[in-house]
Amino acid sequence: MELTFLGTGAGVPAKTRNVTAIALQLLDERSVWWLFDCGEATQHQLLKSSLKPGKIEKIFITHLHGDHIFGLPGLLSSRSFQGGDTALTVYGPKGIRAFIETSLKVSQTHLSYPLIIEEMQPGVIFEDEQFKVETALLSHGIDSYGFRIEERDKVGKLDVAGLTKLGVKPGPVFKVIKDGGDVTLEDGSVISGKDFVAPSIKGRIVTILGDTRPTDTSVKLAQGANVLVHEATFEADKSKMARAYYHSSTTQAATIALKANVTHLILTHISSRYMFDDLKKLAQEARSVFENTDIADDFSTFEIPYQK
Amino acid sequence: MELTFLGTGAGVPAKTRNVTAIALQLLDERSVWWLFDCGEATQHQLLKSSLKPGKIEKIFITHLHGDHIFGLPGLLSSRSFQGGDTALTVYGPKGIRAFIETSLKVSQTHLSYPLIIEEMQPGVIFEDEQFKVETALLSHGIDSYGFRIEERDKVGKLDVAGLTKLGVKPGPVFKVIKDGGDVTLEDGSVISGKDFVAPSIKGRIVTILGDTRPTDTSVKLAQGANVLVHEATFEADKSKMARAYYHSSTTQAATIALKANVTHLILTHISSRYMFDDLKKLAQEARSVFENTDIADDFSTFEIPYQK
Repeated sequence: MELTFLGTGAGVPAKTRNVTAIALQLLDERSVWWLFDCGEATQHQLLKSSLKPGKIEKIFITHLHGDHIFGLPGLLSSRSFQGGDTALTVYGPKGIRAFIETSLKVSQTHLSYPLIIEEMQPGVIFEDEQFKVETALLSHGIDSYGFRIEERDKVGKLDVAGLTKLGVKPGPVFKVIKDGGDVTLEDGSVISGKDFVAPSIKGRIVTILGDTRPTDTSVKLAQGANVLVHEATFEADKSKMARAYYHSSTTQAATIALKANVTHLILTHISSRYMFDDLKKLAQEARSVFENTDIADDFSTFEIPYQK
Repeated sequence: MELTFLGTGAGVPAKTRNVTAIALQLLDERSVWWLFDCGEATQHQLLKSSLKPGKIEKIFITHLHGDHIFGLPGLLSSRSFQGGDTALTVYGPKGIRAFIETSLKVSQTHLSYPLIIEEMQPGVIFEDEQFKVETALLSHGIDSYGFRIEERDKVGKLDVAGLTKLGVKPGPVFKVIKDGGDVTLEDGSVISGKDFVAPSIKGRIVTILGDTRPTDTSVKLAQGANVLVHEATFEADKSKMARAYYHSSTTQAATIALKANVTHLILTHISSRYMFDDLKKLAQEARSVFENTDIADDFSTFEIPYQK
């Protein structure tokens, strides 16, 4: 899994930071990717990346502020214009349907693929054999959701060499062993599946939060995550301003990461008031609370390793 | 007056051409500017220009296809975010109100300035002491409008030096002379105003058309214009494809310019299939019909001189 930040600014586009959009490539799991938020010109950012609109499987919208959704009609239309034919699901707060449907209707856009729009409620919004996505409401004045994406644990590798040595050959018996069952060999001895299967690999957890003040819900959604993506609109000294605008400061975001015991914190949604030199200071502030912190730039990419 | 092309592509954004938007700076007449169409990321293009969102006075939308309107919600919001406080009027086809109002409502955007939305009918849609804007329906499958912007003629300069020589001093009499009236001097002689006023300066005419097949309406809207902005989505050989998609080819656009006896033709809305070398060919095709033709690139600027 890999995260690519397509827009890391707050409120309005700036020369160096576009408004919010984050791509989660699932890689091994699926040859598709998921998009979190879709600020204006997200499709333009995609032109500068290797990500293809046709390969988007799901779009998750944290909240309906313009800098998180105004790129949706264009991206959905261009995906069609370019011949995308696989189904696409958009999950978002109540109101996302009216926005998308009005935009497509007024512009007489007829999509070449099935579009499913799901107005969500807190809870599990998606689940299959590979992933579970859970959402909860944060604290932002407007309904703003956070997403916890859990990858299922992977069953460990079968010790084929060890089994071959004992004369066990591939066949239905391998399935019994892989499931940890007992098997009686030809010589009458009994082996236990669990001795021939490596420990299972813990699925990764990615938590991506919408704009928010610090809230306990964020800690819950991020508990034990491999990566937490949290907004940091303001520097540490501006926590009052952050509160007034329903946002978080660097140290507030870092405190959430610390409380949730995550592995890696990535800060985004940086106010355009902060220039190059300021960013060092912002990073230092956050790292003084939670060391493994990065500030995302547009096109920053972060691989998400398995837990060691 | 000056035209700046902010987006000159067709359908979807490409690396070198954004979707449609054209700025008309009124300069001497008003310190504001007018925008024609507003494809996605028009506000991003403005960041790379000297044009300020706060100074937009009017936005004219030719038609509701996404590549001409999906930048509107973002631009309107950012103009507010940046403290714009002067009224802004959007003129567009029926449906533009639903699109704007739904976008602003869903995103809970509260504008800092008065926004007037006028769903237009063919005819004169705006008129004051400086400009008249007339619109008519073109031929594009969806309602697509062309705009004819007429600057009022300017009264010629008063020959103050000549009048002073005759002993006529500034005062209410100057107004009579400027209006071409007769004035009796102190010595009993009569002078005629028209002998002391330079010929009036003919106001300029700018015609900006939405996407369209060739149509007589275009010729009418462009009659005698100083500048005609016409789409040329396809090369001359692809006139059948142009017809199928309700667009025009280079030579079709040039034929309209010729019939309308305009001074200068500027082609825009160029399909992304055409690269650098193709553009020379497209220009040659158009110039073989109408010599004074340019193909606009993103950020091309054209001054609009008075008629000689």
